[in-house]
Amino acid sequence: MAIVDPGVGTEREILLVEYDKHIFMAPDNGLLAPLLDHAEDAKIWQLDLKRLGSLNLPKPSDTFHGRDIFAPVAAELAAGNLSLTEIGKSVSEYTPGWLDDPVVGKGKVSGTIITIDAFGNLISNIDQSLIEDFREPIAHIAGHAIPTLTTYGRAKPGDLLALVNSFGVIEIAKSEGSAADGIGSERGAPLVVTDGTST
Amino acid sequence: MAIVDPGVGTEREILLVEYDKHIFMAPDNGLLAPLLDHAEDAKIWQLDLKRLGSLNLPKPSDTFHGRDIFAPVAAELAAGNLSLTEIGKSVSEYTPGWLDDPVVGKGKVSGTIITIDAFGNLISNIDQSLIEDFREPIAHIAGHAIPTLTTYGRAKPGDLLALVNSFGVIEIAKSEGSAADGIGSERGAPLVVTDGTST
Amino acid sequence: MAIVDPGVGTEREILLVEYDKHIFMAPDNGLLAPLLDHAEDAKIWQLDLKRLGSLNLPKPSDTFHGRDIFAPVAAELAAGNLSLTEIGKSVSEYTPGWLDDPVVGKGKVSGTIITIDAFGNLISNIDQSLIEDFREPIAHIAGHAIPTLTTYGRAKPGDLLALVNSFGVIEIAKSEGSAADGIGSERGAPLVVTDGTST
Repeated sequence: MAIVDPGVGTEREILLVEYDKHIFMAPDNGLLAPLLDHAEDAKIWQLDLKRLGSLNLPKPSDTFHGRDIFAPVAAELAAGNLSLTEIGKSVSEYTPGWLDDPVVGKGKVSGTIITIDAFGNLISNIDQSLIEDFREPIAHIAGHAIPTLTTYGRAKPGDLLALVNSFGVIEIAKSEGSAADGIGSERGAPLVVTDGTST
Repeated sequence: MAIVDPGVGTEREILLVEYDKHIFMAPDNGLLAPLLDHAEDAKIWQLDLKRLGSLNLPKPSDTFHGRDIFAPVAAELAAGNLSLTEIGKSVSEYTPGWLDDPVVGKGKVSGTIITIDAFGNLISNIDQSLIEDFREPIAHIAGHAIPTLTTYGRAKPGDLLALVNSFGVIEIAKSEGSAADGIGSERGAPLVVTDGTST
Repeated sequence: MAIVDPGVGTEREILLVEYDKHIFMAPDNGLLAPLLDHAEDAKIWQLDLKRLGSLNLPKPSDTFHGRDIFAPVAAELAAGNLSLTEIGKSVSEYTPGWLDDPVVGKGKVSGTIITIDAFGNLISNIDQSLIEDFREPIAHIAGHAIPTLTTYGRAKPGDLLALVNSFGVIEIAKSEGSAADGIGSERGAPLVVTDGTST
């Protein structure tokens, strides 16, 4: 169950997805798109609130469906007390995501900064598998050309570095500092990784 | 057990309240006043530290009674190893709260902003039950007259809105922004809700 | 297990220490030095990653040994599934700490601010036992001479005070404010406590 839900209380639907022996539940606002775009045999349902009567839920608020709908329904599903066919309407459409997949070219991958962590590290959607053939990966962002090192401690204090982080994606960091402050980039900024040896 | 305790280590007493099959424990600094003001048959005790000998507590610090007194006493009470008569002195007085109840008039309720959450939403002490007869509730704060909508997603980005939040009280929010920053109001600010149809 | 690990993924070793019926695990970067400097009969091992084969751990990342090495090894040690001799190489050296012990003179103790908490309280390494004979302890920092009180509530709003905090060490606080902002001191600042009656 995942909830990032600026549309709570409006007409946005709630999705239930059955895929790979898991059930995924989230608002239909793009949150599940990265999964659904690649999960061809996933089954998708829209939650039908009218069919939750047997749960005897209190009247849901308009501002906190996580507490009032998502959590109790997920709990009953996990406990095996509800089935998806019982509470859902089968659908084939869903709201698309806001993020494009990285574009892979010869010696070049173009991606996006998708989040910035509490240390100011810029985290991208470029998986390490996309650059595994690069002998000298160079990360390009906001006019900077940044070398790739194995870990934070390999850079001099104050220097920018790119690395494969513990999620397995490319991250831009600044040793003993904040890359976000240093570069001035925000979520959504483009990041391009090239192979320095192919230039 | 609730601890907001700027007076820790001074002469302030510790209260134990028996009400509605619950025991409430808190410093006697106004924290329990909103309960005690309306709980006519509550029984109130002051904790007598001298009678805690059987617990063999280490000497309490002067700065952290939550760890040294409240937590172990609450745990023993919850475990049924202590009784209130054993450790408390029955009293009838308590420190009053800092917050007045909302004042209800014809087509008008006057309340107070009691806290500001991490998103900058201004949360008041005006319960939805006080305005349930209003056909068009308008929230007045710091010179703004703000319409009431059902949920955040009904407002345009940047617009102020009032709503009944998930605690069931009136809240002032700014769509995709911070109402606190936008309005400049702080905790304790007056909030008046009127019925627009009665003007 | 403790991890403050700016050198993750570099040549820094991982220490396992057996002392006083406990096992301590931490990067060898000074983190365990305050213990080892005073624990004469402690036994020290360096973790030998090559001998973890039986755990079948996934290949560790270069940036998050807490997740990939420390946590699983600590769990197996706690479960009794591993022995220190099995996975460690006995050593006698370790990286020294960055912090000197307080210097104790006649009616005077010289220490250091070692951390600043979320309230702006400056927390030192001067244990209360070092000033227990002082009749009137005065804390000196950045040109301020600050009296010692028993608790925060004894000071007037806005006044600086020194106190023995709930960790049993000397702390500099500002009533209803931030001592760090008020004094402008940072971690590492010297703090001297004198006995006002011995002047």
